[in-house]
Amino acid sequence: PETKLPRVGTTIFTQMSALAQAHQAINLSQGFPDFDGPQVLLERVGHYIRQGDNQYAPMSGVPSLCEAIAAKVERCYGRRVDAGTEVTVTSGATEALFAAIAAVVRPGDEVILFDPAYDSYDPAITLNGGKAVHIQLMPPVFAIDWEAVARAITPRTRMIILNTPHNPTGQTLGPDDLQALSELVADTDILLLADEVYEHIVFDGAAHQSINRYPDLAQRSFIVSSFGKTYHTTGWKIGYCVAPAPLTAELRKVHQYLTFSTSTPMQLALADFMRTDTEHDQRLPAFYQARRDRFNAQMASSRFRFTPAAGTYFQVMDYSGISNLPDTEFVLWLIEQAGVAAIPLSVFCQQPPEMKLIRFCFAKSETTLDQAAEQLCKI
Amino acid sequence: PETKLPRVGTTIFTQMSALAQAHQAINLSQGFPDFDGPQVLLERVGHYIRQGDNQYAPMSGVPSLCEAIAAKVERCYGRRVDAGTEVTVTSGATEALFAAIAAVVRPGDEVILFDPAYDSYDPAITLNGGKAVHIQLMPPVFAIDWEAVARAITPRTRMIILNTPHNPTGQTLGPDDLQALSELVADTDILLLADEVYEHIVFDGAAHQSINRYPDLAQRSFIVSSFGKTYHTTGWKIGYCVAPAPLTAELRKVHQYLTFSTSTPMQLALADFMRTDTEHDQRLPAFYQARRDRFNAQMASSRFRFTPAAGTYFQVMDYSGISNLPDTEFVLWLIEQAGVAAIPLSVFCQQPPEMKLIRFCFAKSETTLDQAAEQLCKI
Ligand SMILES: CSCCC(=O)C(=O)O
Ligand SMILES: CSCCC(=O)C(=O)O
Repeated sequence: PETKLPRVGTTIFTQMSALAQAHQAINLSQGFPDFDGPQVLLERVGHYIRQGDNQYAPMSGVPSLCEAIAAKVERCYGRRVDAGTEVTVTSGATEALFAAIAAVVRPGDEVILFDPAYDSYDPAITLNGGKAVHIQLMPPVFAIDWEAVARAITPRTRMIILNTPHNPTGQTLGPDDLQALSELVADTDILLLADEVYEHIVFDGAAHQSINRYPDLAQRSFIVSSFGKTYHTTGWKIGYCVAPAPLTAELRKVHQYLTFSTSTPMQLALADFMRTDTEHDQRLPAFYQARRDRFNAQMASSRFRFTPAAGTYFQVMDYSGISNLPDTEFVLWLIEQAGVAAIPLSVFCQQPPEMKLIRFCFAKSETTLDQAAEQLCKI
Repeated sequence: PETKLPRVGTTIFTQMSALAQAHQAINLSQGFPDFDGPQVLLERVGHYIRQGDNQYAPMSGVPSLCEAIAAKVERCYGRRVDAGTEVTVTSGATEALFAAIAAVVRPGDEVILFDPAYDSYDPAITLNGGKAVHIQLMPPVFAIDWEAVARAITPRTRMIILNTPHNPTGQTLGPDDLQALSELVADTDILLLADEVYEHIVFDGAAHQSINRYPDLAQRSFIVSSFGKTYHTTGWKIGYCVAPAPLTAELRKVHQYLTFSTSTPMQLALADFMRTDTEHDQRLPAFYQARRDRFNAQMASSRFRFTPAAGTYFQVMDYSGISNLPDTEFVLWLIEQAGVAAIPLSVFCQQPPEMKLIRFCFAKSETTLDQAAEQLCKI
């Protein structure tokens, strides 16, 4: 019998991390830090576990964490959201993305997304009977072609998925993009799903253009973020979704049957940390920019070519000066020749354009980055 | 625009727990213990967090936990499963149930389930375009009418969902049921989804009839269980699914885009605990049977009537000697009159039959159970 996701294999992140381990290569593929989150945050989990907070959290999230999220959205973006009816804590941003899609995409509905696109979007749309409409971002800076979006919109367009800062390219949307988007959707019922998991990792003094800043867009949006990226705890798998009450109500109908709730002691710990430290997220841009710059400074003497990432903890590099191999083969060659694992970009595209690009994760210690750069400069 | 789950509200568990809190009633509604898991287990989480195990677990689960699960399945049921290709750790059993359904139920496929049915099954089927075929269990002991199942099977039957020990009724399937099921599906492609989250809570010396014991059924089954129920840590939201490699491959395609993975330090802690203590699950039947018996002994002098639960930590009681109210109204009356929250059974049925039954959770301290029974005996 036909399978439901015939074209889907194991995610590239699992594949590359396994290969990196098998070859004892430096793993700059799957995105996760090799350093820990704030000690106070880590210790709070043990505190709540010892205190006996080990039973189900409320389905929509621990109230103190929902309130901390609402406070953060107001502090960072000047938007007031109701912690009780507009914030939902999920089992990672991945669950929030899936739940938002499952909540509103009906069979036959079209969803516009931009390639290269994070690899969970298309299967989530497909599993829900929707049609993923892929629009290629325009190199070299992977800009959105808003004319192409206008042409792609049909009466069946249910949703547009945005992702800024953008994984895997490290690019960000600017105010002009949001303006163009506002005009495009103004007289439609089109919903937005904004993947903003790298919201606090934006460089060179730029301000993250969160949908939260744009009331006309926010009122039709699911805005998804992640604690793993912000607090260096990707393995805790806690994320959240901010959406107007009617959209949140639909999201929760799905969330309650997808996972119901997520780790109680970890939610309580995050709530405490966010209440007492409102500066961690403000320090994050400088923290990651230093790593980007350190890695890139050394890579300047390699045969890779690149424009510095504008956000995220990923740096895309062009290897056309080194090899003619397709990127999925080049990353295998690179593991063997340089002992460094990276992520090919073509796997994020429905129809990969001609590009010789791979992605390195620089959420790593200075020693790891220096060692990786040294090895990469030799090839 | 029409919503995707028009008939779905907030789960009864969230509703009743909120009402219990608002009325300061004793909460015997939502199923969770009011005592903690083993201290060693709790402490291991802090250990791994401090040690820096805070990044993504492998998508299919931490290897040591998958191996501990495989060892347990062999020890308890004599079935050998491969930890690498047949075991998947999920964000609670709820995610495993959803992922199994999403992995194989295609639009138009029929899925047979038994009412009263755990409330996540039907929406999961519906969201995936399937048709839920509800068969009523036969009172008073909620037996499966296998003739009715035979009549309900059509060429579109893709899956049958089993649940033993059964929530909410506390009943269990016997060897005869499994025999009847084997004969029914023998010459078909019908898959099975076995919700066995209460596998270690079976009373009166009976052996849990796990699908794992029946090779002809196991080869077509997703078998789902939960650590929360076994280790008194419902708030950690970690479960798992055991299925033959080809089914596991399909399940993981979905799991990787639903949540990707679940809490690394908690998985590592569970693995350690399972390796060093293989007796916790064997002590569980006596542990919960004592609570069932204590509660029921006192309830014998109430106006409720009941047959002792055969498994789970739930006791169903008949209130027809007390009131003529429908169960959804009776539970509201009960919160106010007796200060005890329970779960009505009709909400788990597509077409509720005439029944005056509610469910109490007895996973509570002796003080809580005594107090609840005392209050319930007064009405
Ligand atoms: C969920 S594993 C992938 C982590 C990640 O977001 C990335 O590497 O892009
Ligand atoms: C996920 S909350 C519901 C807990 C439970 O399984 C029950 O009370 O039946």
